[in-house]
Amino acid sequence: MSEIETLGQHRVHGGTLTYVRHNSAATSTAMRFSIFVPDGKGPFASVVWLSGLTCTEENFTAKAGAYGAAAALKLIVIAPDTSPRGEGVADDAAYDLGQGAGFYINSTEAPWAPHFQMETYITRDLIAAVDANFPTDPARRGVSGHSMGGHGALTLALKYPDLFKSVSAFSPIVSPTRCDWGRKAFGAYLGSDEAKWAAHDACLLIEAGAGANLDDILIDQGLADNFLENQLKPELIEAAAAKAGRKVTVRRQPGYDHSYFFITSFIADHLAFHAARLKA
Amino acid sequence: MSEIETLGQHRVHGGTLTYVRHNSAATSTAMRFSIFVPDGKGPFASVVWLSGLTCTEENFTAKAGAYGAAAALKLIVIAPDTSPRGEGVADDAAYDLGQGAGFYINSTEAPWAPHFQMETYITRDLIAAVDANFPTDPARRGVSGHSMGGHGALTLALKYPDLFKSVSAFSPIVSPTRCDWGRKAFGAYLGSDEAKWAAHDACLLIEAGAGANLDDILIDQGLADNFLENQLKPELIEAAAAKAGRKVTVRRQPGYDHSYFFITSFIADHLAFHAARLKA
Repeated sequence: MSEIETLGQHRVHGGTLTYVRHNSAATSTAMRFSIFVPDGKGPFASVVWLSGLTCTEENFTAKAGAYGAAAALKLIVIAPDTSPRGEGVADDAAYDLGQGAGFYINSTEAPWAPHFQMETYITRDLIAAVDANFPTDPARRGVSGHSMGGHGALTLALKYPDLFKSVSAFSPIVSPTRCDWGRKAFGAYLGSDEAKWAAHDACLLIEAGAGANLDDILIDQGLADNFLENQLKPELIEAAAAKAGRKVTVRRQPGYDHSYFFITSFIADHLAFHAARLKA
Repeated sequence: MSEIETLGQHRVHGGTLTYVRHNSAATSTAMRFSIFVPDGKGPFASVVWLSGLTCTEENFTAKAGAYGAAAALKLIVIAPDTSPRGEGVADDAAYDLGQGAGFYINSTEAPWAPHFQMETYITRDLIAAVDANFPTDPARRGVSGHSMGGHGALTLALKYPDLFKSVSAFSPIVSPTRCDWGRKAFGAYLGSDEAKWAAHDACLLIEAGAGANLDDILIDQGLADNFLENQLKPELIEAAAAKAGRKVTVRRQPGYDHSYFFITSFIADHLAFHAARLKA
Protein backbone atom coordinates (compact mmCIF):
# COMPACT_ATOMS: atom_id res chain seq x y z
CA MET A 1 0.00 0.00 0.00
CA SER A 2 2.94 2.35 0.28
CA GLU A 3 3.80 2.11 -3.41
CA ILE A 4 3.83 5.47 -5.16
CA GLU A 5 3.84 6.79 -8.71
CA THR A 6 5.83 9.92 -9.51
CA LEU A 7 3.75 12.33 -11.63
CA GLY A 8 6.28 15.13 -11.91
CA GLN A 9 9.39 16.52 -10.33
CA HIS A 10 10.90 20.02 -10.11
CA ARG A 11 14.00 21.50 -8.58
CA VAL A 12 13.00 24.39 -6.33
CA HIS A 13 15.04 26.41 -3.82
CA GLY A 14 17.83 23.86 -3.73
CA GLY A 15 15.52 20.96 -3.02
CA THR A 16 13.25 18.61 -4.95
CA LEU A 17 9.49 18.87 -5.26
CA THR A 18 7.71 15.68 -6.34
CA TYR A 19 4.07 15.21 -7.30
CA VAL A 20 2.88 11.76 -6.28
CA ARG A 21 -0.14 9.53 -6.90
CA HIS A 22 -0.79 6.48 -4.73
CA ASN A 23 -3.66 4.19 -3.82
CA SER A 24 -5.31 4.67 -0.45
CA ALA A 25 -7.07 1.76 1.24
CA ALA A 26 -8.91 4.27 3.42
CA THR A 27 -10.53 6.18 0.56
CA SER A 28 -10.49 3.28 -1.94
CA THR A 29 -9.25 5.79 -4.52
CA ALA A 30 -6.01 7.05 -5.95
CA MET A 31 -4.85 10.11 -4.00
CA ARG A 32 -2.35 12.82 -4.88
CA PHE A 33 0.11 14.82 -2.85
CA SER A 34 3.19 16.95 -3.35
CA ILE A 35 6.33 16.62 -1.27
CA PHE A 36 9.32 18.94 -0.97
CA VAL A 37 12.57 17.34 0.18
CA PRO A 38 15.58 19.54 0.97
CA ASP A 39 18.98 18.58 -0.39
CA GLY A 40 21.36 16.94 2.02
CA LYS A 41 21.42 13.97 4.27
CA GLY A 42 18.19 13.06 6.05
CA PRO A 43 16.23 11.95 7.86
CA PHE A 44 14.45 15.29 8.05
CA ALA A 45 11.68 16.64 10.25
CA SER A 46 8.48 17.16 8.24
CA VAL A 47 5.32 19.23 8.20
CA VAL A 48 2.06 18.01 6.65
CA TRP A 49 0.04 20.89 5.17
CA LEU A 50 -3.74 20.48 5.00
CA SER A 51 -5.47 22.77 2.51
CA GLY A 52 -8.86 24.45 2.63
CA LEU A 53 -12.16 24.12 0.81
CA THR A 54 -11.97 23.73 -3.00
CA CYS A 55 -8.19 23.17 -2.93
CA THR A 56 -6.18 20.30 -4.34
CA GLU A 57 -2.54 19.44 -3.63
CA GLU A 58 -1.62 22.17 -6.12
CA ASN A 59 -2.77 25.35 -4.34
CA PHE A 60 -0.26 25.32 -1.50
CA THR A 61 2.46 23.89 -3.71
CA ALA A 62 2.23 26.64 -6.32
CA LYS A 63 1.15 29.62 -4.24
CA ALA A 64 2.47 29.43 -0.67
CA GLY A 65 6.08 30.24 -1.51
CA ALA A 66 7.06 27.91 1.33
CA TYR A 67 10.04 26.05 -0.07
CA GLY A 68 12.74 28.66 0.44
CA ALA A 69 12.06 28.61 4.17
CA ALA A 70 11.63 24.83 4.16
CA ALA A 71 15.03 24.40 2.49
CA ALA A 72 16.72 26.76 4.95
CA LEU A 73 15.13 24.93 7.90
CA LYS A 74 15.79 21.46 6.39
CA LEU A 75 12.10 20.56 6.56
CA ILE A 76 10.18 18.16 4.34
CA VAL A 77 6.75 19.62 3.48
CA ILE A 78 3.89 17.40 2.31
CA ALA A 79 0.69 18.79 0.75
CA PRO A 80 -2.09 16.25 0.16
CA ASP A 81 -5.36 16.72 -1.73
CA THR A 82 -8.43 17.68 0.32
CA SER A 83 -10.73 14.76 -0.54
CA PRO A 84 -11.12 11.63 -2.60
CA ARG A 85 -12.03 12.37 -6.21
CA GLY A 86 -13.01 10.70 -9.43
CA GLU A 87 -15.77 8.72 -11.02
CA GLY A 88 -17.87 6.80 -8.53
CA VAL A 89 -16.95 9.18 -5.69
CA ALA A 90 -19.95 11.05 -4.28
CA ASP A 91 -20.05 14.79 -4.81
CA ASP A 92 -22.24 17.83 -4.27
CA ALA A 93 -22.67 20.96 -6.36
CA ALA A 94 -21.80 23.18 -3.38
CA TYR A 95 -18.16 24.15 -2.88
CA ASP A 96 -18.28 23.24 0.80
CA LEU A 97 -19.40 19.61 0.58
CA GLY A 98 -18.11 16.56 -1.26
CA GLN A 99 -15.05 16.58 -3.50
CA GLY A 100 -12.64 19.31 -2.38
CA ALA A 101 -14.29 19.39 1.06
CA GLY A 102 -13.26 16.22 2.90
CA PHE A 103 -12.92 17.96 6.29
CA TYR A 104 -10.28 15.43 7.40
CA ILE A 105 -12.84 13.16 9.06
CA ASN A 106 -14.15 9.64 8.40
CA SER A 107 -17.70 9.66 7.11
CA THR A 108 -20.22 7.18 8.48
CA GLU A 109 -23.15 8.23 6.28
CA ALA A 110 -24.40 7.54 2.76
CA PRO A 111 -23.41 8.47 0.12
CA TRP A 112 -20.09 9.64 1.60
CA ALA A 113 -18.83 6.74 3.73
CA PRO A 114 -17.38 4.55 0.94
CA HIS A 115 -14.66 7.07 0.04
CA PHE A 116 -14.71 10.05 2.43
CA GLN A 117 -12.28 8.62 4.99
CA MET A 118 -9.82 11.48 5.10
CA GLU A 119 -8.84 11.11 8.77
CA THR A 120 -7.56 7.60 8.18
CA TYR A 121 -6.10 8.62 4.84
CA ILE A 122 -3.96 11.37 6.36
CA THR A 123 -2.97 9.62 9.58
CA ARG A 124 -2.31 6.19 8.08
CA ASP A 125 -2.05 5.91 4.29
CA LEU A 126 -0.45 9.27 3.47
CA ILE A 127 2.10 8.99 6.25
CA ALA A 128 2.90 5.37 5.35
CA ALA A 129 3.51 6.34 1.72
CA VAL A 130 5.68 9.29 2.72
CA ASP A 131 7.72 7.42 5.32
CA ALA A 132 8.31 4.47 2.99
CA ASN A 133 9.51 6.57 0.07
CA PHE A 134 11.09 9.76 1.43
CA PRO A 135 13.70 10.53 4.13
CA THR A 136 11.30 11.62 6.89
CA ASP A 137 11.98 11.13 10.57
CA PRO A 138 8.68 9.67 11.87
CA ALA A 139 9.43 10.98 15.35
CA ARG A 140 9.66 14.59 14.12
CA ARG A 141 6.47 15.45 12.29
CA GLY A 142 4.21 18.51 12.55
CA VAL A 143 0.97 19.52 10.90
CA SER A 144 -0.40 22.84 9.69
CA GLY A 145 -3.18 23.99 7.42
CA HIS A 146 -5.58 26.67 6.26
CA SER A 147 -9.26 27.17 7.03
CA MET A 148 -10.86 23.69 6.69
CA GLY A 149 -7.25 22.44 6.71
CA GLY A 150 -6.56 24.46 9.86
CA HIS A 151 -9.41 22.53 11.47
CA GLY A 152 -7.80 19.35 10.13
CA ALA A 153 -4.38 20.25 11.51
CA LEU A 154 -5.68 21.17 14.95
CA THR A 155 -7.95 18.17 15.38
CA LEU A 156 -5.50 15.60 14.03
CA ALA A 157 -2.66 16.99 16.18
CA LEU A 158 -4.91 16.90 19.24
CA LYS A 159 -6.13 13.36 18.48
CA TYR A 160 -2.80 11.86 17.36
CA PRO A 161 -0.07 13.19 19.68
CA ASP A 162 2.18 10.25 18.80
CA LEU A 163 2.00 11.22 15.12
CA PHE A 164 2.25 15.02 15.28
CA LYS A 165 4.59 16.84 17.66
CA SER A 166 3.79 20.41 16.58
CA VAL A 167 0.77 22.19 15.13
CA SER A 168 -0.07 25.58 13.67
CA ALA A 169 -2.85 26.95 11.50
CA PHE A 170 -3.88 29.84 9.28
CA SER A 171 -7.47 31.08 9.58
CA PRO A 172 -8.65 27.75 11.00
CA ILE A 173 -12.22 26.62 11.57
CA VAL A 174 -11.55 26.19 15.28
CA SER A 175 -15.01 24.94 16.20
CA PRO A 176 -16.86 23.29 13.30
CA THR A 177 -19.78 22.41 15.59
CA ARG A 178 -20.40 26.15 15.95
CA CYS A 179 -20.24 27.42 12.37
CA ASP A 180 -22.23 26.80 9.20
CA TRP A 181 -19.38 25.20 7.23
CA GLY A 182 -18.75 22.66 9.95
CA ARG A 183 -22.38 21.96 10.85
CA LYS A 184 -23.26 21.33 7.21
CA ALA A 185 -20.30 19.02 6.61
CA PHE A 186 -20.55 17.14 9.91
CA GLY A 187 -24.30 16.69 9.45
CA ALA A 188 -23.70 15.18 6.01
CA TYR A 189 -20.63 13.08 6.82
CA LEU A 190 -21.36 12.06 10.43
CA GLY A 191 -25.15 12.25 10.68
CA SER A 192 -27.43 14.27 12.90
CA ASP A 193 -26.25 12.94 16.28
CA GLU A 194 -24.16 15.89 17.39
CA ALA A 195 -22.54 13.86 20.16
CA LYS A 196 -20.44 12.26 17.42
CA TRP A 197 -19.26 15.64 16.18
CA ALA A 198 -17.38 16.62 19.35
CA ALA A 199 -14.43 14.36 18.55
CA HIS A 200 -13.71 16.53 15.51
CA ASP A 201 -13.95 19.99 17.08
CA ALA A 202 -10.59 21.46 18.16
CA CYS A 203 -12.13 23.58 20.90
CA LEU A 204 -14.09 20.72 22.39
CA LEU A 205 -11.03 18.46 22.20
CA ILE A 206 -8.95 21.02 24.09
CA GLU A 207 -11.67 21.46 26.70
CA ALA A 208 -11.75 17.67 27.09
CA GLY A 209 -8.03 17.64 27.89
CA ALA A 210 -6.31 16.98 24.56
CA GLY A 211 -3.09 18.79 23.65
CA ALA A 212 -1.13 18.25 26.87
CA ASN A 213 1.94 17.42 24.76
CA LEU A 214 1.88 20.76 22.90
CA ASP A 215 3.73 23.68 24.49
CA ASP A 216 1.98 26.11 22.15
CA ILE A 217 -0.32 26.26 19.13
CA LEU A 218 0.40 29.05 16.64
CA ILE A 219 -2.56 30.54 14.76
CA ASP A 220 -2.46 33.42 12.30
CA GLN A 221 -5.77 35.09 11.48
CA GLY A 222 -6.26 37.95 9.03
CA LEU A 223 -8.58 40.68 10.28
CA ALA A 224 -9.88 41.43 6.75
CA ASP A 225 -10.93 37.79 6.34
CA ASN A 226 -14.55 37.63 5.12
CA PHE A 227 -15.12 34.42 7.08
CA LEU A 228 -13.71 35.64 10.40
CA GLU A 229 -16.91 36.41 12.28
CA ASN A 230 -19.29 33.74 11.04
CA GLN A 231 -17.06 30.72 10.40
CA LEU A 232 -13.62 31.03 12.01
CA LYS A 233 -14.14 32.66 15.44
CA PRO A 234 -10.61 32.40 16.88
CA GLU A 235 -11.89 33.72 20.21
CA LEU A 236 -13.44 30.29 20.78
CA ILE A 237 -10.07 28.51 20.83
CA GLU A 238 -8.60 31.19 23.07
CA ALA A 239 -11.47 30.59 25.50
CA ALA A 240 -11.10 26.81 25.29
CA ALA A 241 -7.35 27.04 25.90
CA ALA A 242 -7.84 29.37 28.85
CA LYS A 243 -10.39 27.00 30.34
CA ALA A 244 -8.09 23.99 29.89
CA GLY A 245 -4.88 25.74 30.91
CA ARG A 246 -3.28 25.31 27.47
CA LYS A 247 -1.31 27.87 25.48
CA VAL A 248 -2.65 29.04 22.14
CA THR A 249 -1.05 32.02 20.38
CA VAL A 250 -3.50 33.77 18.05
CA ARG A 251 -1.84 36.48 15.98
CA ARG A 252 -4.44 38.83 14.50
CA GLN A 253 -2.99 40.36 11.33
CA PRO A 254 -4.59 43.69 10.34
CA GLY A 255 -5.60 43.98 6.69
CA TYR A 256 -4.90 40.38 5.69
CA ASP A 257 -7.65 38.31 4.05
CA HIS A 258 -8.40 34.60 3.56
CA SER A 259 -6.25 34.14 0.44
CA TYR A 260 -2.87 32.55 -0.24
CA PHE A 261 -1.40 36.06 -0.16
CA PHE A 262 -1.95 35.85 3.60
CA ILE A 263 -0.42 32.38 3.84
CA THR A 264 2.66 33.27 1.80
CA SER A 265 3.26 36.28 4.05
CA PHE A 266 3.59 34.22 7.24
CA ILE A 267 4.38 30.65 6.17
CA ALA A 268 8.08 31.10 7.01
CA ASP A 269 7.11 31.98 10.61
CA HIS A 270 5.04 28.81 10.81
CA LEU A 271 7.75 26.57 9.42
CA ALA A 272 10.21 28.09 11.90
CA PHE A 273 7.71 27.43 14.70
CA HIS A 274 7.57 23.77 13.67
CA ALA A 275 11.32 23.45 13.12
CA ALA A 276 12.03 24.79 16.61
CA ARG A 277 9.76 22.11 18.10
CA LEU A 278 10.95 19.28 15.84
CA LYS A 279 14.68 19.65 16.42
CA ALA A 280 16.45 16.32 16.84
CA MET B 1 -5.93 57.40 -20.47
CA SER B 2 -4.25 56.80 -17.14
CA GLU B 3 -7.53 56.14 -15.35
CA ILE B 4 -7.61 52.75 -13.63
CA GLU B 5 -10.20 50.44 -12.08
CA THR B 6 -9.26 48.42 -9.00
CA LEU B 7 -10.39 44.80 -9.38
CA GLY B 8 -9.06 43.47 -6.10
CA GLN B 9 -6.61 44.19 -3.35
CA HIS B 10 -4.70 42.01 -0.88
CA ARG B 11 -2.25 42.63 1.91
CA VAL B 12 0.88 40.56 1.31
CA HIS B 13 4.27 40.62 3.04
CA GLY B 14 3.64 44.00 4.62
CA GLY B 15 2.67 45.65 1.36
CA THR B 16 -0.38 45.96 -0.85
CA LEU B 17 -1.08 44.01 -4.02
CA THR B 18 -3.67 45.52 -6.35
CA TYR B 19 -5.25 44.01 -9.45
CA VAL B 20 -6.01 46.70 -12.00
CA ARG B 21 -7.97 47.04 -15.26
CA HIS B 22 -7.45 50.03 -17.53
CA ASN B 23 -8.04 51.00 -21.14
CA SER B 24 -5.07 51.01 -23.47
CA ALA B 25 -5.08 53.25 -26.54
CA ALA B 26 -2.32 51.10 -27.99
CA THR B 27 -4.25 47.83 -27.91
CA SER B 28 -7.72 49.41 -28.08
CA THR B 29 -8.75 47.00 -25.34
CA ALA B 30 -9.02 46.87 -21.60
CA MET B 31 -5.79 45.49 -20.13
CA ARG B 32 -5.04 44.02 -16.72
CA PHE B 33 -2.02 44.11 -14.47
CA SER B 34 -1.10 43.50 -10.86
CA ILE B 35 1.05 45.86 -8.83
CA PHE B 36 2.74 45.32 -5.47
CA VAL B 37 3.53 48.46 -3.48
CA PRO B 38 5.61 48.22 -0.29
CA ASP B 39 4.46 50.02 2.82
CA GLY B 40 6.21 53.25 3.64
CA LYS B 41 6.97 56.52 1.99
CA GLY B 42 7.67 56.47 -1.74
CA PRO B 43 8.52 57.16 -4.41
CA PHE B 44 9.90 53.66 -4.92
CA ALA B 45 12.05 52.08 -7.60
CA SER B 46 10.05 49.57 -9.64
CA VAL B 47 10.45 46.44 -11.74
CA VAL B 48 8.10 45.52 -14.58
CA TRP B 49 7.75 41.74 -14.94
CA LEU B 50 6.86 40.38 -18.39
CA SER B 51 5.43 36.87 -18.38
CA GLY B 52 5.78 34.04 -20.86
CA LEU B 53 3.55 32.25 -23.35
CA THR B 54 0.01 31.37 -22.13
CA CYS B 55 0.38 33.51 -19.00
CA THR B 56 -1.85 36.29 -17.73
CA GLU B 57 -1.07 38.84 -15.02
CA GLU B 58 -1.97 36.13 -12.51
CA ASN B 59 0.83 33.58 -13.00
CA PHE B 60 3.70 35.65 -11.64
CA THR B 61 1.50 37.28 -9.04
CA ALA B 62 0.34 34.00 -7.51
CA LYS B 63 3.34 31.75 -8.09
CA ALA B 64 6.61 33.69 -8.08
CA GLY B 65 6.73 34.31 -4.35
CA ALA B 66 8.38 37.65 -5.13
CA TYR B 67 6.75 40.01 -2.69
CA GLY B 68 8.71 39.16 0.44
CA ALA B 69 11.91 40.19 -1.32
CA ALA B 70 10.19 43.15 -2.99
CA ALA B 71 9.00 44.42 0.40
CA ALA B 72 12.45 44.02 1.94
CA LEU B 73 14.06 45.87 -0.99
CA LYS B 74 11.31 48.53 -1.13
CA LEU B 75 10.54 47.74 -4.76
CA ILE B 76 7.26 48.14 -6.58
CA VAL B 77 6.63 45.15 -8.88
CA ILE B 78 4.23 45.36 -11.82
CA ALA B 79 3.00 42.28 -13.72
CA PRO B 80 0.96 42.99 -16.87
CA ASP B 81 -0.97 40.52 -19.03
CA THR B 82 0.84 39.09 -22.07
CA SER B 83 -1.52 40.22 -24.84
CA PRO B 84 -4.78 41.96 -25.62
CA ARG B 85 -7.79 39.71 -25.07
CA GLY B 86 -11.51 39.57 -25.52
CA GLU B 87 -14.18 39.50 -28.15
CA GLY B 88 -13.09 41.02 -31.42
CA VAL B 89 -9.41 40.40 -30.68
CA ALA B 90 -7.76 38.03 -33.14
CA ASP B 91 -6.63 34.68 -31.79
CA ASP B 92 -5.13 31.38 -32.87
CA ALA B 93 -5.69 27.88 -31.56
CA ALA B 94 -1.95 27.42 -30.95
CA TYR B 95 -0.57 28.35 -27.53
CA ASP B 96 2.28 30.31 -29.08
CA LEU B 97 0.35 32.78 -31.24
CA GLY B 98 -2.43 35.26 -30.55
CA GLN B 99 -3.98 35.82 -27.15
CA GLY B 100 -1.45 34.98 -24.43
CA ALA B 101 1.41 35.35 -26.92
CA GLY B 102 1.82 39.06 -27.67
CA PHE B 103 5.64 38.91 -27.80
CA TYR B 104 5.89 42.55 -26.65
CA ILE B 105 6.02 43.89 -30.22
CA ASN B 106 3.71 46.03 -32.37
CA SER B 107 2.07 44.02 -35.12
CA THR B 108 1.85 45.45 -38.63
CA GLU B 109 -0.05 42.55 -40.17
CA ALA B 110 -3.68 41.41 -40.46
CA PRO B 111 -5.48 40.16 -38.44
CA TRP B 112 -3.17 41.13 -35.55
CA ALA B 113 -2.36 44.81 -36.08
CA PRO B 114 -5.61 46.34 -34.69
CA HIS B 115 -4.91 45.12 -31.13
CA PHE B 116 -1.50 43.41 -30.89
CA GLN B 117 0.50 46.53 -30.01
CA MET B 118 2.20 45.27 -26.88
CA GLU B 119 5.43 47.23 -27.26
CA THR B 120 3.55 50.53 -27.13
CA TYR B 121 1.23 49.17 -24.47
CA ILE B 122 4.10 48.34 -22.10
CA THR B 123 6.33 51.32 -22.82
CA ARG B 124 3.60 53.96 -22.92
CA ASP B 125 0.15 53.01 -21.61
CA LEU B 126 1.11 50.63 -18.80
CA ILE B 127 3.80 52.92 -17.48
CA ALA B 128 1.55 55.98 -17.73
CA ALA B 129 -1.18 54.22 -15.74
CA VAL B 130 1.31 53.04 -13.11
CA ASP B 131 3.09 56.38 -12.73
CA ALA B 132 -0.19 58.30 -12.49
CA ASN B 133 -1.70 56.08 -9.81
CA PHE B 134 1.12 54.57 -7.75
CA PRO B 135 4.23 55.97 -6.01
CA THR B 136 6.82 54.96 -8.60
CA ASP B 137 9.99 56.91 -9.30
CA PRO B 138 10.04 57.14 -13.13
CA ALA B 139 13.81 57.55 -13.08
CA ARG B 140 14.33 54.23 -11.27
CA ARG B 141 12.63 51.49 -13.25
CA GLY B 142 13.86 48.04 -14.31
CA VAL B 143 12.38 45.21 -16.34
CA SER B 144 12.55 41.45 -16.06
CA GLY B 145 10.64 38.50 -17.44
CA HIS B 146 10.43 34.83 -18.30
CA SER B 147 10.81 33.07 -21.64
CA MET B 148 8.77 35.17 -24.13
CA GLY B 149 8.76 37.79 -21.37
CA GLY B 150 12.53 37.48 -21.04
CA HIS B 151 12.71 38.39 -24.72
CA GLY B 152 10.37 41.29 -23.97
CA ALA B 153 12.47 42.48 -21.02
CA LEU B 154 15.75 42.31 -22.93
CA THR B 155 14.51 43.98 -26.12
CA LEU B 156 12.53 46.73 -24.38
CA ALA B 157 15.45 47.53 -22.05
CA LEU B 158 17.81 47.68 -25.03
CA LYS B 159 15.44 49.84 -27.08
CA TYR B 160 14.25 52.17 -24.29
CA PRO B 161 17.27 53.02 -22.11
CA ASP B 162 15.52 56.15 -20.84
CA LEU B 163 12.65 54.03 -19.55
CA PHE B 164 14.48 51.01 -18.08
CA LYS B 165 17.74 51.33 -16.13
CA SER B 166 18.22 47.64 -15.28
CA VAL B 167 17.28 44.35 -16.91
CA SER B 168 17.33 40.66 -16.06
CA ALA B 169 15.61 37.57 -17.40
CA PHE B 170 14.74 33.96 -16.66
CA SER B 171 15.03 31.44 -19.51
CA PRO B 172 14.68 34.21 -22.13
CA ILE B 173 14.19 33.78 -25.84
CA VAL B 174 17.40 35.69 -26.55
CA SER B 175 17.18 35.53 -30.32
CA PRO B 176 13.63 35.10 -31.65
CA THR B 177 14.85 35.35 -35.24
CA ARG B 178 16.72 32.09 -34.64
CA CYS B 179 14.11 29.88 -32.97
CA ASP B 180 10.74 28.47 -33.97
CA TRP B 181 8.70 30.37 -31.37
CA GLY B 182 10.11 33.68 -32.52
CA ARG B 183 10.07 33.00 -36.27
CA LYS B 184 6.44 31.90 -36.13
CA ALA B 185 5.32 34.92 -34.09
CA PHE B 186 7.40 37.50 -35.97
CA GLY B 187 6.26 36.09 -39.32
CA ALA B 188 2.65 36.44 -38.25
CA TYR B 189 2.88 39.80 -36.47
CA LEU B 190 5.54 41.55 -38.57
CA GLY B 191 5.31 39.82 -41.95
CA SER B 192 7.84 37.90 -43.98
CA ASP B 193 10.43 40.67 -44.42
CA GLU B 194 13.01 39.50 -41.90
CA ALA B 195 14.82 42.84 -42.00
CA LYS B 196 11.97 44.16 -39.84
CA TRP B 197 12.53 41.43 -37.27
CA ALA B 198 16.03 42.50 -36.24
CA ALA B 199 14.75 45.42 -34.14
CA HIS B 200 13.09 42.88 -31.83
CA ASP B 201 15.96 40.42 -31.34
CA ALA B 202 18.04 41.04 -28.19
CA CYS B 203 21.18 39.50 -29.68
CA LEU B 204 20.99 41.55 -32.86
CA LEU B 205 20.26 44.70 -30.85
CA ILE B 206 23.36 44.12 -28.71
CA GLU B 207 25.48 43.44 -31.78
CA ALA B 208 24.16 46.71 -33.25
CA GLY B 209 25.39 48.64 -30.22
CA ALA B 210 22.40 48.81 -27.88
CA GLY B 211 22.83 48.38 -24.14
CA ALA B 212 25.72 50.78 -23.55
CA ASN B 213 23.92 52.09 -20.46
CA LEU B 214 23.71 48.65 -18.82
CA ASP B 215 26.66 47.55 -16.67
CA ASP B 216 25.40 43.97 -16.68
CA ILE B 217 22.45 41.83 -17.74
CA LEU B 218 21.55 38.97 -15.39
CA ILE B 219 20.11 35.80 -16.93
CA ASP B 220 19.18 32.61 -15.10
CA GLN B 221 18.71 29.50 -17.22
CA GLY B 222 17.72 26.07 -15.94
CA LEU B 223 19.68 23.20 -17.45
CA ALA B 224 16.70 20.81 -17.26
CA ASP B 225 14.58 23.27 -19.29
CA ASN B 226 12.92 21.40 -22.19
CA PHE B 227 13.19 24.50 -24.39
CA LEU B 228 16.86 25.21 -23.75
CA GLU B 229 18.42 23.83 -26.92
CA ASN B 230 15.82 24.60 -29.55
CA GLN B 231 14.24 27.85 -28.40
CA LEU B 232 16.29 29.64 -25.74
CA LYS B 233 19.97 29.22 -26.70
CA PRO B 234 21.65 31.46 -24.10
CA GLU B 235 25.00 30.94 -25.82
CA LEU B 236 23.80 33.31 -28.53
CA ILE B 237 23.54 36.27 -26.16
CA GLU B 238 26.91 35.44 -24.62
CA ALA B 239 28.41 35.51 -28.12
CA ALA B 240 26.62 38.76 -29.01
CA ALA B 241 27.80 40.41 -25.78
CA ALA B 242 31.38 39.26 -26.35
CA LYS B 243 31.32 40.63 -29.88
CA ALA B 244 29.92 43.99 -28.70
CA GLY B 245 32.04 44.26 -25.57
CA ARG B 246 29.03 44.16 -23.26
CA LYS B 247 28.65 42.21 -20.02
CA VAL B 248 26.00 39.51 -19.77
CA THR B 249 25.97 37.12 -16.81
CA VAL B 250 24.30 33.81 -17.67
CA ARG B 251 23.88 31.57 -14.64
CA ARG B 252 23.21 27.98 -15.69
CA GLN B 253 21.27 26.27 -12.91
CA PRO B 254 21.61 22.47 -12.89
CA GLY B 255 18.36 20.52 -12.58
CA TYR B 256 16.00 23.50 -12.87
CA ASP B 257 13.24 23.47 -15.51
CA HIS B 258 11.08 26.07 -17.29
CA SER B 259 8.42 26.35 -14.56
CA TYR B 260 7.59 28.90 -11.90
CA PHE B 261 9.40 26.65 -9.42
CA PHE B 262 12.55 27.87 -11.14
CA ILE B 263 11.49 31.50 -11.03
CA THR B 264 10.51 31.39 -7.36
CA SER B 265 13.91 29.91 -6.51
CA PHE B 266 15.89 32.86 -7.89
CA ILE B 267 13.49 35.83 -8.07
CA ALA B 268 14.96 37.34 -4.89
CA ASP B 269 18.39 37.41 -6.56
CA HIS B 270 16.91 39.22 -9.55
CA LEU B 271 15.08 41.79 -7.46
CA ALA B 272 18.29 42.44 -5.51
CA PHE B 273 20.15 42.85 -8.84
CA HIS B 274 17.62 45.49 -9.89
CA ALA B 275 17.51 47.20 -6.50
CA ALA B 276 21.30 47.58 -6.49
CA ARG B 277 21.14 49.34 -9.87
CA LEU B 278 18.06 51.46 -9.08
CA LYS B 279 19.26 52.96 -5.81
CA ALA B 280 18.42 56.64 -5.47
